[in-house]
Amino acid sequence: MGALERLFQPRGVAIVGASTDPVRVGGAPVKALADYGYAGQVYPVNPKYDEIHGLKCYASVADIAGPCDLAIIAVAAAATPDVLRACGEKKIPYAVVLSGGYRESGKDGATLEAEVRQVLAETGIRMIGPNCQGVINLTDRMYATFGAIAAEPDMRAGRIAMSFQSGGFGFTIALLCEQQGVGFRYLVSGGNETDIKTPELLDAFLDDSETKVAFAMIEGVDDGRALQRVGRRGLSIGKPVIVWKIGNSETGARAAASHTANMTGQYDIYQAAFRQAGIVEARDVEQLQDLFFAFEAGRLPAGNRVAVITITGGSGIAFADRAVEGGLDLPSFEPATTEALEKIIPVFGSTGNPVDTTANLFNQVENFTSAVSHVINDPNVDQLAVLMASVSGPTAEAAAHAVVGAAEASGKPVIVAWSARRERASDAYKVLEDAGIPIVPTPVRAADAAATLSEFAARQRRLAGKTEMTITPVDVTLPDGLGALDEVAGKALLAAYDIPVTEDRIVHLGDDPACIAEGLSYPLIAKVLSPDITHKTDVGGVRANLGDAEALTEAVAEIVLAARHARPDAQIDGVIVSEMVSGAEVLAGVINDAVFGPTIAVGLGGIFTEVLRDITYRIAPFDADEAHAMLGELRARALFDGVRGGPALDVEALAEALSALSRLAWDHRGRLAELDVNPLFVRPKGQGIVAADALVVLK
Amino acid sequence: MGALERLFQPRGVAIVGASTDPVRVGGAPVKALADYGYAGQVYPVNPKYDEIHGLKCYASVADIAGPCDLAIIAVAAAATPDVLRACGEKKIPYAVVLSGGYRESGKDGATLEAEVRQVLAETGIRMIGPNCQGVINLTDRMYATFGAIAAEPDMRAGRIAMSFQSGGFGFTIALLCEQQGVGFRYLVSGGNETDIKTPELLDAFLDDSETKVAFAMIEGVDDGRALQRVGRRGLSIGKPVIVWKIGNSETGARAAASHTANMTGQYDIYQAAFRQAGIVEARDVEQLQDLFFAFEAGRLPAGNRVAVITITGGSGIAFADRAVEGGLDLPSFEPATTEALEKIIPVFGSTGNPVDTTANLFNQVENFTSAVSHVINDPNVDQLAVLMASVSGPTAEAAAHAVVGAAEASGKPVIVAWSARRERASDAYKVLEDAGIPIVPTPVRAADAAATLSEFAARQRRLAGKTEMTITPVDVTLPDGLGALDEVAGKALLAAYDIPVTEDRIVHLGDDPACIAEGLSYPLIAKVLSPDITHKTDVGGVRANLGDAEALTEAVAEIVLAARHARPDAQIDGVIVSEMVSGAEVLAGVINDAVFGPTIAVGLGGIFTEVLRDITYRIAPFDADEAHAMLGELRARALFDGVRGGPALDVEALAEALSALSRLAWDHRGRLAELDVNPLFVRPKGQGIVAADALVVLK
Repeated sequence: MGALERLFQPRGVAIVGASTDPVRVGGAPVKALADYGYAGQVYPVNPKYDEIHGLKCYASVADIAGPCDLAIIAVAAAATPDVLRACGEKKIPYAVVLSGGYRESGKDGATLEAEVRQVLAETGIRMIGPNCQGVINLTDRMYATFGAIAAEPDMRAGRIAMSFQSGGFGFTIALLCEQQGVGFRYLVSGGNETDIKTPELLDAFLDDSETKVAFAMIEGVDDGRALQRVGRRGLSIGKPVIVWKIGNSETGARAAASHTANMTGQYDIYQAAFRQAGIVEARDVEQLQDLFFAFEAGRLPAGNRVAVITITGGSGIAFADRAVEGGLDLPSFEPATTEALEKIIPVFGSTGNPVDTTANLFNQVENFTSAVSHVINDPNVDQLAVLMASVSGPTAEAAAHAVVGAAEASGKPVIVAWSARRERASDAYKVLEDAGIPIVPTPVRAADAAATLSEFAARQRRLAGKTEMTITPVDVTLPDGLGALDEVAGKALLAAYDIPVTEDRIVHLGDDPACIAEGLSYPLIAKVLSPDITHKTDVGGVRANLGDAEALTEAVAEIVLAARHARPDAQIDGVIVSEMVSGAEVLAGVINDAVFGPTIAVGLGGIFTEVLRDITYRIAPFDADEAHAMLGELRARALFDGVRGGPALDVEALAEALSALSRLAWDHRGRLAELDVNPLFVRPKGQGIVAADALVVLK
Repeated sequence: MGALERLFQPRGVAIVGASTDPVRVGGAPVKALADYGYAGQVYPVNPKYDEIHGLKCYASVADIAGPCDLAIIAVAAAATPDVLRACGEKKIPYAVVLSGGYRESGKDGATLEAEVRQVLAETGIRMIGPNCQGVINLTDRMYATFGAIAAEPDMRAGRIAMSFQSGGFGFTIALLCEQQGVGFRYLVSGGNETDIKTPELLDAFLDDSETKVAFAMIEGVDDGRALQRVGRRGLSIGKPVIVWKIGNSETGARAAASHTANMTGQYDIYQAAFRQAGIVEARDVEQLQDLFFAFEAGRLPAGNRVAVITITGGSGIAFADRAVEGGLDLPSFEPATTEALEKIIPVFGSTGNPVDTTANLFNQVENFTSAVSHVINDPNVDQLAVLMASVSGPTAEAAAHAVVGAAEASGKPVIVAWSARRERASDAYKVLEDAGIPIVPTPVRAADAAATLSEFAARQRRLAGKTEMTITPVDVTLPDGLGALDEVAGKALLAAYDIPVTEDRIVHLGDDPACIAEGLSYPLIAKVLSPDITHKTDVGGVRANLGDAEALTEAVAEIVLAARHARPDAQIDGVIVSEMVSGAEVLAGVINDAVFGPTIAVGLGGIFTEVLRDITYRIAPFDADEAHAMLGELRARALFDGVRGGPALDVEALAEALSALSRLAWDHRGRLAELDVNPLFVRPKGQGIVAADALVVLK
């Protein structure tokens, strides 16, 4: 039995606080459970009534006779803990608490929510809500819900499972999708997510063999890594986890904070975490519909090469534009394919990719069938889009059969863009739908869906080639206490993780700088060494381009003087002297994200980070392969390939260093408050990287 | 009478090549014109028949008795010129040539197309097509068309006029939009656009008082400036010109080239030209629908401040995310508004912006009405979005009345996001539709449409504040002949347009460089002066950072030597000596775009242009205000505001220089093959700019 199975498929449901008014919170589920086809037992509970909506009404939970796996609790917040205790005594394993009045409503509510949490711990009850709109299992017509959705008895059942934090908007999305033909299996409004949270729901959706796609709309989660785990699991079993995250603009986040109590971390980091874990991001309802259809079909492309067949040239052009934007490639066909197409496609059509069969081909549908078959079986083609324009009637049905036949014979994914009025082509629609061929209304949306399918498949291939990342603990001990480490100690930590650092010499107060620097090649750089001074430049504590011993000696003296002047309180341990390093300047750092924990950020130095905000993120730890993907997201990525005839840089070494930094961040997540490697120089290919400074702050 | 009026509203229509088969090219329009409600005369012409579809059939055009403003020509390509001649004799002013077989089909077709053009010139006939799917006036049920659309007798008439080059895909889009409630007035498939082209059609749409929105789908146009003119005209009269351009990716453009003979210039330049002329760009069908509804409503916001009222918090958050992304601001309300809202909105709602009235407010609809009214009348609010989720029934109707009332009283634009099933809320939909309130299905789409409305209005305000740009010719004569000017002549041309250039001295062969440089401040830069050497660095012809007279003298000698060695054939006139300039390095240039003519490109120097391709365009000429808008599109725009504590740069001077360069490019459009100002240094605010080099190539 999968996780939470009895929550979704209860043998009996109690409605505590049942009402005779079918539009009230306590009345709507009674009516829906009684009337919409739910086959289990329904137990209204309310001491005021003997019967509600033709069902025997129980005075208390204790009186229920018969199997009961779920209690819908619709009483006032203050009465809920006692109801939960009664459910615990009755061994009811799941509760859905609909009413509000908890932490979203202020301090008293928060206290009540803590009490609820305590009762759950004592009784072992697992709970959805509070402050939610409930749970629906459309397959079994189990409506544990109220509001607009409870007045929709005919909602289509299907294979998409959806959870959401915002009840009303979640159901609005579900209704919109349903109107376009999407069938849902489960719909869950999690509300305050006091107990059962989005990642656990998604995990349960993956467990369920009837569910093909797991979707969540979130404002935020409190455990980002749990979300990533479920994304990776979905990727590995080929069931996509789709997430639509809202509350990303400052205004939106402010509204989200006033709306529920869910965390909304930095959107950039969420997006990076989604990519890293193979979570598919959605941003509006139409996109969701298309992805539901495309993924429900259950076929993934072996590569990013898409062929497109149109009967109207313009639609092929619009498709091509968007497909290329989405990272797809429109390959040329093998000569044999082209030759076969030339025999059947009129001269004013096109045998290239996009293929324009022209509408004439529908006059001899066997030719259209043959064209589709030749194209999909071309070895250069990983998936196919067929743009059917508005064709209807018997022609459409014949074309639909051609598409279905070709798809089934080839096993490759096929998507159809088609906009005939349903009443003019109902047979043809049915042919495609029965065969599980996704249909979207426009070529642009077909291209978007095909691109997402391809990206998901590419991530899956990358994951499949990977063994679990083994993290060998590194033998390094951090000093006790809070605050910043000095540069020497900071670099030692990097070095322990095999991140190359500059060769540094320490000039202690009173030493002869020239002697200490013996063996280093001028020009040199000198920097004040002090655990108390984290921004050395600000205190005049850095002197670069020192050409000879004399300049060095002078600089060391000046640095100490300047630092003492600026920060008389600081402990000054001396001056670090190192060779000047050159290469492309990179900043790398560790962020302790509230939602995802230790996270690595990287960007190119100077204006790229400061002006263009060209920064990319990954949740730690990760391997070098993931670091390459991370670097690939930088807009200025091409800089690593060499600029103005310059040499290509050692991206491999940078990727290794980022992976090492991510392991460091993970190992010391309990102690690291902050870590900045700035600058980190990337040298020409083969010459590696070197960290020229490190700021480590402990907590 | 507006342009092309009799094309769209003919008093009689001849169908030459009329067929008795209603699915054939010559048969479909006969049937459609006879059966769908067209009130004018219909004249089938075909010597083989006496009657077609119950109508008298004429043996030839000459036999037609009665008014005839339009001839639909459905005969083979070779027979078309003679038919056109006959139409000319009969004084039929307009022809729609449906058949293909012209330049899209090869050389013979091109010859035929030239002949057609010749006949048009002789007869004065204006023509749509050839190789097109015809013209429809849905208001008057005038279907001069064939194919799928000719089998749609019930298409809703409305106020959107649409032209497209790709016949099949254009009609597909029209049908999709129509299924969502869009009403079209005119639909025109322009085909090869041999005579009447997209800009002329758009212009005629603007002329037509019944048309509220002019839309074109294009693969390309041959006169980009004509498109801009019609965009500006639409902006000034408040009738938006919307364009969806396809064929933008390399693959898409290749497909477009094989599809029609239309130009597809560089997409970046098209997009810049759209922005410059106030043309609204669309990229898919759903977006088009929303824009049609939003613009058809006829109200524009006075600023970018949007308020949003929701009954489900999540939808407000999703709206806010996208609205902010689209450049909208969600302002705070005046205290009086907040106070009023606090009295009616439950505590678990939100009185901020987004306003969350909660679904409870529908229980007392007068409170909802009051909330909507307070919010829309807040002086900080320019437009309002109401997110109605899936509410249906009498509540929905009451809410709809509230929205209509508030919109009418305030005169501000209102958009509604609503997803109730139509059959559950038909009365409410009707209330909104009758009042012309745009309805879209999702909050995200509402935000997109509101942002586009706001952007259009902002452009309109900018245009309204402008007087026509007067270009005073500059008294400068370009030398005769082809090829490159030397740097001195190039800079002189810039200087004639008041673009500051470096103070240069010319060291002729044999001169003493130090004497010539007298009065300049070292360090200096020396560059070879030769009309034959356009890339001076490549031949060792540039030496910078010359600290004193000695270094200068040495450098001059070396430059001449190096240049002679590298290019023994080149005429070397000496060496240019100038002061070193500093500032932010910018590249500015003139592109002679095939579609738009002289166009200015600008980007920041170095990697910004080379690696990040951070370049922006404007069609010449333009004023400094437009140049500011142009610079605002650079991703690295913030660099001009000063970096790392550096001073803000003189963007005003740069904008003036770009405007001057654009006038230069326009004045000399007949002679300029190429013009590059590289580098152009932008100095701190108040210190202006200076062009340090100029390459001018004449044609």
